[in-house]
Amino acid sequence: MKTSNQAAVSTIGEGLDSPPIDSRERARQLVMKIQDEISTGLERLDGKAHFLEDSWERPEGGGGRSRVIKEGRVFEQGGINFSEVYGNELPPSILNQRPEAKGHKWYATGTSMVLHPRNPYIPTTHLNYRYFEAGPVWWFGGGADLTPFYPYLEDARHFHQVHKAACDSISPDFYKVFKPWCDEYFFLKHRNETRGIGGIFYDYQDSTGVLYKGQDNNGPASSISKEIGPRPKSWEQLFSLAKACGESFLPAYGPIIEKRQDQPYGDKERDFQLYRRGRYAEFNLVWDRGTIFGLQTNGRTESILMSLPPLARWEYGYKAPAGSREALLTGLFTKPQDWLNDPSLDKRSRTYQTVE
Amino acid sequence: MKTSNQAAVSTIGEGLDSPPIDSRERARQLVMKIQDEISTGLERLDGKAHFLEDSWERPEGGGGRSRVIKEGRVFEQGGINFSEVYGNELPPSILNQRPEAKGHKWYATGTSMVLHPRNPYIPTTHLNYRYFEAGPVWWFGGGADLTPFYPYLEDARHFHQVHKAACDSISPDFYKVFKPWCDEYFFLKHRNETRGIGGIFYDYQDSTGVLYKGQDNNGPASSISKEIGPRPKSWEQLFSLAKACGESFLPAYGPIIEKRQDQPYGDKERDFQLYRRGRYAEFNLVWDRGTIFGLQTNGRTESILMSLPPLARWEYGYKAPAGSREALLTGLFTKPQDWLNDPSLDKRSRTYQTVE
Repeated sequence: MKTSNQAAVSTIGEGLDSPPIDSRERARQLVMKIQDEISTGLERLDGKAHFLEDSWERPEGGGGRSRVIKEGRVFEQGGINFSEVYGNELPPSILNQRPEAKGHKWYATGTSMVLHPRNPYIPTTHLNYRYFEAGPVWWFGGGADLTPFYPYLEDARHFHQVHKAACDSISPDFYKVFKPWCDEYFFLKHRNETRGIGGIFYDYQDSTGVLYKGQDNNGPASSISKEIGPRPKSWEQLFSLAKACGESFLPAYGPIIEKRQDQPYGDKERDFQLYRRGRYAEFNLVWDRGTIFGLQTNGRTESILMSLPPLARWEYGYKAPAGSREALLTGLFTKPQDWLNDPSLDKRSRTYQTVE
Repeated sequence: MKTSNQAAVSTIGEGLDSPPIDSRERARQLVMKIQDEISTGLERLDGKAHFLEDSWERPEGGGGRSRVIKEGRVFEQGGINFSEVYGNELPPSILNQRPEAKGHKWYATGTSMVLHPRNPYIPTTHLNYRYFEAGPVWWFGGGADLTPFYPYLEDARHFHQVHKAACDSISPDFYKVFKPWCDEYFFLKHRNETRGIGGIFYDYQDSTGVLYKGQDNNGPASSISKEIGPRPKSWEQLFSLAKACGESFLPAYGPIIEKRQDQPYGDKERDFQLYRRGRYAEFNLVWDRGTIFGLQTNGRTESILMSLPPLARWEYGYKAPAGSREALLTGLFTKPQDWLNDPSLDKRSRTYQTVE
């Protein structure tokens, strides 16, 4: 007789391919390459500042390299981490999602990045791709998203379009799940706002074909069908997905920098940017499970908190004037939208002031 | 036969006095008076800015008044809240501590404050006094603490001395428990730092005489004997404690403002202040149970986050130069110290540069 727990285990077990013999090496090389290519591309875009690298070891096993860029022409501050870490037992928060990993040693490798540009017309952005193995289970996770201050529909559409194309190059199943998942994960429940215009986000992806189990959302920002599957995806497909998405970051973000970097701004725009960066700090410190988990379990604090803004401000009771460019952000762009298919967005955005 | 749970209930029940018939009214009046007297005193100290008041209602029951001061001569930003709220069932985090309250309606009233002065030589400070009733149980909680940037032993000693005197005026049992409890509660585990030089903190104080049960600490910053009791304290004693401590805030903080407010500072001191304010935001968003609980359970976000700094910054890998005034803060003042009894502090602080 199967208990319901055994049933859950064997559901995972039944569809789960073995990873290739060199899975860890290939995953590690992939995320290091993503880190390298993006670092190089960002230095080229900045044209002034360079990344400084810190290598570090984790006392419990593994290590990483943290790269930081500061006071650049484009980037006020930003960081991109690579890490490869391992240990004897995954923390309870992950074991809840993957009980099959209990009692097994684990391995994880990934890259994560946050960039805080100086010009308020260039959005803040975040990227993360990671791979886990633990006993009988393995999975991929990752994504990239954009947090504008003074938002443009064309920028939101471009960022989504490039990531959709990367997802579609592997399977048409991905974007339609990973897009709303991103809206749900990067959601500030206490503000009833998404962090920004989203992008893609996924976790616990393996060959069992269960794309999404509703296990990882912060809020009811959008509705995702609770389970799509079984649509078997192989290790190779998921590896290719991380590769395609990682490679799509520069084509998704670079053109936005190039288009916005020379737009002049004043104290008013800077003040609003700093105020909205407060929201970014709130999300990362209150809701982001990766950050909280890292801080509460003896992670490398400086690397975890590289995501925080170089400067942020808080103001009691701030309200954007009705119809203003600042109100456009929360009125339209911090709510989940179907950027690629909803033609009403143009008209709705025109009910606010446009950026001169 | 008693189960262990019943035993726990009857332990509380056995020593617990009934509160006076007008307990809620008296507690409410007390915390409103603390809010009023402190608001008035702070406006006098600032000499320029005034508090603006916002009254609000809580959809689930009750309401409050939030007062904010901005861009003053002394205070860059600060807020002091009063609230009186009630509901049908306390949240699980509180029921864990007081299982006797389960299934009962609850009532809570309190005042809380955070002040962010502009001059980096004046410490940031926090105060909170509150009173709860729920079915058979009631309790008081509260405290006040100080977070300096460029610290002075004499200021730390003064703040502690005034609060110790307030505690001692009711019972000699209080300060020796509430002082280390404050060090434990306001502890940033991920930085291995106390938030500042502490002060006093207490919670779940009722007439059963159990001062501290180790239920409310964030880290091993200091050691408190796990339970001191039974030393019965009456409702009246605990009410008087909140009154004495609340009234001692202005005499504890005011002289520090008066002594430091004209000390000149430059960009270096301002930058360090903003960097350390990042720590304040980290504590409040990651570790402070009141903040997290409020944000995750539909509290009034703007009032809860009044504690956050008007401006803060983060910088990867910052290290204060050895022996500097900045290193004095983390070397000595963000570790638990026996400010009132340890004569070695003078000598140890002189191994760092003193403030010119």
